[in-house]
Amino acid sequence: MVEQKLEKDPAYVREFERTLDVIDRAQTFFLTTHLNPDGDGLGCESALSLALTCLGKTVTVVNAHPVPAVYHFLPNQETFLTQAPPGVIYDVAIMLECPDEQRSGGVLPIPGGAREIINLDHHVFNTRYGTVNLIDPTAAAAGEQVWDLLMALDCPVDKAMAIGIYTAIATDTGQFKYPSVTPRTHRVVAQLLELGLEVGFMNEQIYERVPRAAMRLLGMALEKVAYNAAGTVGWFAVTQDMLRAAGAAENQTENFINYVRSVEGVQVAIFFQEMSDGRVKVSFRSRGRVDVSALAYALGGGGHKRAAGVTLTQSLAEAQARVLAAVETSLAPKS
Amino acid sequence: MVEQKLEKDPAYVREFERTLDVIDRAQTFFLTTHLNPDGDGLGCESALSLALTCLGKTVTVVNAHPVPAVYHFLPNQETFLTQAPPGVIYDVAIMLECPDEQRSGGVLPIPGGAREIINLDHHVFNTRYGTVNLIDPTAAAAGEQVWDLLMALDCPVDKAMAIGIYTAIATDTGQFKYPSVTPRTHRVVAQLLELGLEVGFMNEQIYERVPRAAMRLLGMALEKVAYNAAGTVGWFAVTQDMLRAAGAAENQTENFINYVRSVEGVQVAIFFQEMSDGRVKVSFRSRGRVDVSALAYALGGGGHKRAAGVTLTQSLAEAQARVLAAVETSLAPKS
Repeated sequence: MVEQKLEKDPAYVREFERTLDVIDRAQTFFLTTHLNPDGDGLGCESALSLALTCLGKTVTVVNAHPVPAVYHFLPNQETFLTQAPPGVIYDVAIMLECPDEQRSGGVLPIPGGAREIINLDHHVFNTRYGTVNLIDPTAAAAGEQVWDLLMALDCPVDKAMAIGIYTAIATDTGQFKYPSVTPRTHRVVAQLLELGLEVGFMNEQIYERVPRAAMRLLGMALEKVAYNAAGTVGWFAVTQDMLRAAGAAENQTENFINYVRSVEGVQVAIFFQEMSDGRVKVSFRSRGRVDVSALAYALGGGGHKRAAGVTLTQSLAEAQARVLAAVETSLAPKS
Repeated sequence: MVEQKLEKDPAYVREFERTLDVIDRAQTFFLTTHLNPDGDGLGCESALSLALTCLGKTVTVVNAHPVPAVYHFLPNQETFLTQAPPGVIYDVAIMLECPDEQRSGGVLPIPGGAREIINLDHHVFNTRYGTVNLIDPTAAAAGEQVWDLLMALDCPVDKAMAIGIYTAIATDTGQFKYPSVTPRTHRVVAQLLELGLEVGFMNEQIYERVPRAAMRLLGMALEKVAYNAAGTVGWFAVTQDMLRAAGAAENQTENFINYVRSVEGVQVAIFFQEMSDGRVKVSFRSRGRVDVSALAYALGGGGHKRAAGVTLTQSLAEAQARVLAAVETSLAPKS
C-alpha cells in the first residue's frame, strides 16, 4: 500500500474516514451504479469489488442493465448480476456515481436492503441520500475517488484494479479532454501506469472494437448533417431505415452527437433518433455557451448545461420542426 | 524555475547538458521541424521559441510548410516563416522531431547555415546528424524533451509555453492513447495543468474546429468501407469526385484512416486517396501485429510498423487491386 495524504476539504476527509470505518466493520457488500451503466460506474465496480474481495469481504454487484460488450474486458465483470438475490439484507450498499436513488434503477432488493449506504459520487447535484455521503465534485470521475479508497484500504493495489480505475477516468473525461480534468487526474493515471497497466491494451479494449455496422451508420449519419444559416446549430438523424440499411442496433449511436459538436462554429449539436416504438429520442450537446438543459426542460426533458435530452411522441419530421424552432428561439438575442 | 532531476540514461544526460551549454553560449537560433509540420513539431517550436526569446536570444522559426489553421492558436506561431532569410548563418539550428536532415524539407538557408545543430527527437531511427544529438525514444513526444529543456533553462515556464507542450504531447499520443505513453507523460501533463492551462480550451482548439466539409467527407468515406472475408483488412477511398461533392480539400483527410483501424477485428486499415495529379496516395495502419512498413516498402514506399504509405502512379482501381493483392499475400500463413 502506498501512503499518501488525501488533499480534500475537511468535511470530505471526515466522510472518507467514516467510509473506511464502515468498510472495516462490515462483511457483506452490495455494489451498484446508475442504470445504463457506463465506464465510470463499471470501472469503479470492477476495481472496488476486487479490493473488497481481497480484504475477505463478500461482494455482490448488481446493475439495472447488463455490462455492455465493450466493457467485457473489465476484471470481475463476469460476476455482475442484473437482479439481486431476493430477501437478502447487506451490511453495506455502495452506490457508485448514482446521484439519486432512482438512478440506480431500483436494484436494491428490498426497502432498507442495506444497513449502511455509502453514496460515492462526483456530481454536484447528488441528493446525499446515503448514511455516508462521499461527494467530490472536484473529481473528474468517480474512479478518482475509488482510487483514493483503494490506496487507503489494507490491500495491495494491483494491475487488475488499475484497469477498472483507468477505464473509469478515461471514459468519463472523454480521454482526458473535458474541463473536469485536473492535475490530480493525470497524477492518478501516472500511478496506474506504474502498476504495469498497458496503455495500448486499454486503448484497444475501450476504443478499437467498433462494430462494422456502427461505423457504417456513423458514415451515413455524418453525410447528412444540416446547419442553420449562422452555422451555430448542427443537427442530424438516424432513422429505422438507416439502422436496417447499416445492420446496426439502436444502442450503437451513443457517441455520434459529439462529432457534430466538434464542427467549427457549432454551439449546439442535436441528434434525432427514430426509435422502434415510433417515438423520437432527441439529444443535445453544447460547448457550454448555450444551456441545453433549459431547452430540453422546455420540451419536457432534462439534463445538464452541456448535455441534455428529451423523448418526443411525434413523427421525426414533426419532432425536428418543433425542436429546431425551439432552438432558434433560445439562440435569438433577448429583446 | 522548478528544479527536477532528469531521469534518463547517462549518455542522454550528457547530451542534454551539452545542449544547455550550447544554448547558453549562443545568440541567434534557427528552429525547424519536419515538413508538413504536426502538433508535436509546432508545439515544440512555439514553447521553445518563447523560452529562448525570454532568455534574450534572437529566434527565427522556419518550416517547409505553413502552420495548418488548426494550430493557429499556438502562441508565437504568427512569427513562423516558410522561407529562411537568405545568406544568414545562425549560431545554432535546433531541429525538432526531424529524424533525418531531408525531412526538414531543406529549409536551412545555406549549406552550413548554422555553427551547431541540436538534433532533438524521439524517433529511434533518427540518423544522429547533429553536432548535439538529443535522441530519447522513451519520450512519447518531442514535447516531453522540450519540457525538460524549459525546466532547465533560466527562464520561468508559463502558461503560454504550456500550451505548446500540451499540444505536442496530446496530438503525438492520440490524446494519451498510444502505447508510447508512460507514467512520465502524465506527470508532465499534470505540471502543465498546474501552470493554469485550461483543458477545455485546449480541447476546443485542437479537436473541436473540424470544417463542415471535412465532416461530410468523413461520412461519405466511412459509409463505403469494405472488408476482406476474414474481416482483418478494412479499406476505403476518397476520390476527386467525393472531394468536390463534399467541398473539401485534399489535406482534410489526415485522420480518416484511424476510424477504420478502430473497427472490431481489423488488423490492417488501408486508405486510398485519389490526388488531383491523378496519382493515388495509399496509407496503411496496423494494430501492431502486421508490419505495414514491409508492405509499403514492397510497393515502393516506406514508414513504420504501425503506420506506412506509398504513392502509386496508377488509376484508383488499379492501385486498389494491386495493394489488396499484396496485403492478402502478406497476411497469408507462411508455408
